[in-house]
Amino acid sequence: MSYFDAASSAPLHSVARQALLASLDEGWADPARLYREGRRARMLLDAAREAAAEAVGCRPDELSFTASGTQAVHAGIAGALAGRRRVGRHLIVSAVEHSSVLHSAEIHEREGGSVTRVTVDRSGAADPAVYAAALRPDTALACLQTANHEVGTEQPVAEVAGVCREAGVPLLVDAAQSLGWGAVGGDWSLLAASAHKWGGPSGVGLLVVRKGVRFAAQGPVDERESGRAPGFENLPAIVAAAASLRAVRAEAVQEAARLRELTERIRARVPELVPDVEVVGDPVRRLPGIVTFSCLYVDGETLLHELDRAGFSVSSGSSCTSSTLTPSHVLKAMGVLSEGNVRVSLPLGTPEEDVTRFLEVLPGAVASVREKLGAPAPRTAVQEDTLVVDALGKRCPIPVIELAKVIGEVPIGGTVRVLSDDEAARLDIPAWCEMRDQEYVGEEPAERGTAYVVRRLT
Amino acid sequence: MSYFDAASSAPLHSVARQALLASLDEGWADPARLYREGRRARMLLDAAREAAAEAVGCRPDELSFTASGTQAVHAGIAGALAGRRRVGRHLIVSAVEHSSVLHSAEIHEREGGSVTRVTVDRSGAADPAVYAAALRPDTALACLQTANHEVGTEQPVAEVAGVCREAGVPLLVDAAQSLGWGAVGGDWSLLAASAHKWGGPSGVGLLVVRKGVRFAAQGPVDERESGRAPGFENLPAIVAAAASLRAVRAEAVQEAARLRELTERIRARVPELVPDVEVVGDPVRRLPGIVTFSCLYVDGETLLHELDRAGFSVSSGSSCTSSTLTPSHVLKAMGVLSEGNVRVSLPLGTPEEDVTRFLEVLPGAVASVREKLGAPAPRTAVQEDTLVVDALGKRCPIPVIELAKVIGEVPIGGTVRVLSDDEAARLDIPAWCEMRDQEYVGEEPAERGTAYVVRRLT
Repeated sequence: MSYFDAASSAPLHSVARQALLASLDEGWADPARLYREGRRARMLLDAAREAAAEAVGCRPDELSFTASGTQAVHAGIAGALAGRRRVGRHLIVSAVEHSSVLHSAEIHEREGGSVTRVTVDRSGAADPAVYAAALRPDTALACLQTANHEVGTEQPVAEVAGVCREAGVPLLVDAAQSLGWGAVGGDWSLLAASAHKWGGPSGVGLLVVRKGVRFAAQGPVDERESGRAPGFENLPAIVAAAASLRAVRAEAVQEAARLRELTERIRARVPELVPDVEVVGDPVRRLPGIVTFSCLYVDGETLLHELDRAGFSVSSGSSCTSSTLTPSHVLKAMGVLSEGNVRVSLPLGTPEEDVTRFLEVLPGAVASVREKLGAPAPRTAVQEDTLVVDALGKRCPIPVIELAKVIGEVPIGGTVRVLSDDEAARLDIPAWCEMRDQEYVGEEPAERGTAYVVRRLT
Repeated sequence: MSYFDAASSAPLHSVARQALLASLDEGWADPARLYREGRRARMLLDAAREAAAEAVGCRPDELSFTASGTQAVHAGIAGALAGRRRVGRHLIVSAVEHSSVLHSAEIHEREGGSVTRVTVDRSGAADPAVYAAALRPDTALACLQTANHEVGTEQPVAEVAGVCREAGVPLLVDAAQSLGWGAVGGDWSLLAASAHKWGGPSGVGLLVVRKGVRFAAQGPVDERESGRAPGFENLPAIVAAAASLRAVRAEAVQEAARLRELTERIRARVPELVPDVEVVGDPVRRLPGIVTFSCLYVDGETLLHELDRAGFSVSSGSSCTSSTLTPSHVLKAMGVLSEGNVRVSLPLGTPEEDVTRFLEVLPGAVASVREKLGAPAPRTAVQEDTLVVDALGKRCPIPVIELAKVIGEVPIGGTVRVLSDDEAARLDIPAWCEMRDQEYVGEEPAERGTAYVVRRLT
């Protein structure tokens, strides 16, 4: 088996495992207690905090351990917003943040705050000028990820931090995907991260609040973790998290170069090996281990099963694999194809042979899915030079497949109206037009679903 | 070393350790993913949920894993209050709940809700009739612990649940101290617990919400744990928590009998071995492993240090060991002596010899602390038949020591006015009067601090 989904959760690093084992015996007591076992636990906790702070580049008393990256994000955003409540209740996030940030933004809106979701370009990158334009006198907080979790694109965090600093607005950076690779540059104010993304154990997040940042922890608190993360500290896991962060940092430069070469090979080879593929995300400013591409006329879930059977574990931002039946908000914000989407994220130490074998297996897997889906005959009816494709009740990627089948049947300049009630069609039909140099005219309400109108240009 | 503070955190059970190790290798992937590693993680999570639900006596889909007992309590109270917001905003808690419950109550009050803190008797037990009297038409939720964490007294949970059920009010039970010993009886609606209290790992709590209970999770949520505990599941720790709960339950009856005998011995012998001691908590309706006593004229922190040097790790509810300088809210609510307080809570498997040795060491440790503190000469001035003791600026237990020294110097019927600015005096001077059959007249404002007036009766 080749596990290629490190961006969801990295396998436990050997150093994390060793540290966890050692501190199971030494670190189970309450570090707030005065007796021997408590003092030993306190020493372990202090040492872990110092090691983590050094890796982050902050003071130990600025760093709190939380129960997960998600809880760090939730607590960080709520506390920073409350701390600047007097300034205003405006929050800025990018449209491609992790769901934990977007969930916090939704709650903030529901409670009467306002939110600007900054758009990104087709590579998934935010623009510092757009952040600057979004800043208002009542902006309490801005949030930006260091790098995107679905496509690997690195964000201009230092520049956005500069823009925010000038306006006196704190920036919270979500460093979940990048902290193992290096400290986050720029003059940010708050930082959140998650240990199981860098090879640490689950159950540990980091929340850093720089001295001088106004912060008012929300919800019930206690005396633990500077009042920012209530509940008994998960000490063995904290020790393992800090130890593994040091360990992955020690090998980061070398491993980054190696993984970048492997993902570069996937970026280059996949479009050569598989027809009708779009590789998404910034080709240069990107994380070393992540590469994402989408395959036309492919159902993401079926492709994942094909790859799983062939021994590869990857994830997908296609609507077809999500419980909500909507495509990934990241791919949507980028305006790229979501159907047949595959994210490959290589764990540290991925052998080159595994990537070679993946490139051998992928073309057959995609072809097999396309063959299975190619069959259904569209019900079509000619109306002058307009063809209507009734894809109602059919799920991604069928509507696009049916469009592709009939586009040659209308004269150049003629149009195809695709009737669809699948949410993914709204994203994937325009993306197909861009890939195929056809004109996407727009959508119109229909008796049932929506009519997506495409004009044949070539 | 003898670790006698299991009520703070129990040492990791061997079964928990084995299960944790096994699932570090099998359970690090995201259980929401469809590939092999994800499916394996999902199976482990499902199996852990079933095992935990069986031990609790609920349906698996009623049980969510949280990051700690504290988070289970916070999420449970907030969600239950919000779910019944239309009914009203009145919350009932006992005065001796764990701080996580009281912190939730404080937040609720700050946000405009109302809270009734039900009093307890001198043994620490709540009275179902008092709960019944506290119920109002706008009561949204009542909370009661299964047993007290500081003195071990068991609460009449089933009776209180019955009273609440009759009124249509859900009862949340905090089972943190008792779940390892057995399922919680009675018709409760929500339950919270914490794995590291029963020998499981830290980083895992349980929140049970019975079907039919109105519940609206507060704060940002995600799709994990039925939307009740956001963030990546701490799977290896969850597996270890469930496995160890089964394991401790299997030995619970036998071990409960054994530990009860040991704590019974401490309850009986300490007052014989150490003068001026009050053993607190219900002598019969109590947890097997906890016994708590307070020693007059003793500073809790110094006594803890003495015992630590002698190889015993215990905790204390004395003001002298707390960062807030106020005595334990539990001892305060019970109206018992807080000075020189010691809680002994025996972990599973505590050898009998350790208890024997503790009883050998304790008298000398108490005597040594009393000797150290006995020295200071009170500044006294005779005013007719009233003596004034100026203990301003002196910390617990000095004010009581000075009172005891001079009570013989006034005639029977005469009074001693103790001037003190130590918060513990408010609790400990009346408690001393009760222990010594003197009359506590009351407190009066003084130029500095407070004057506590005591009339000599014997």
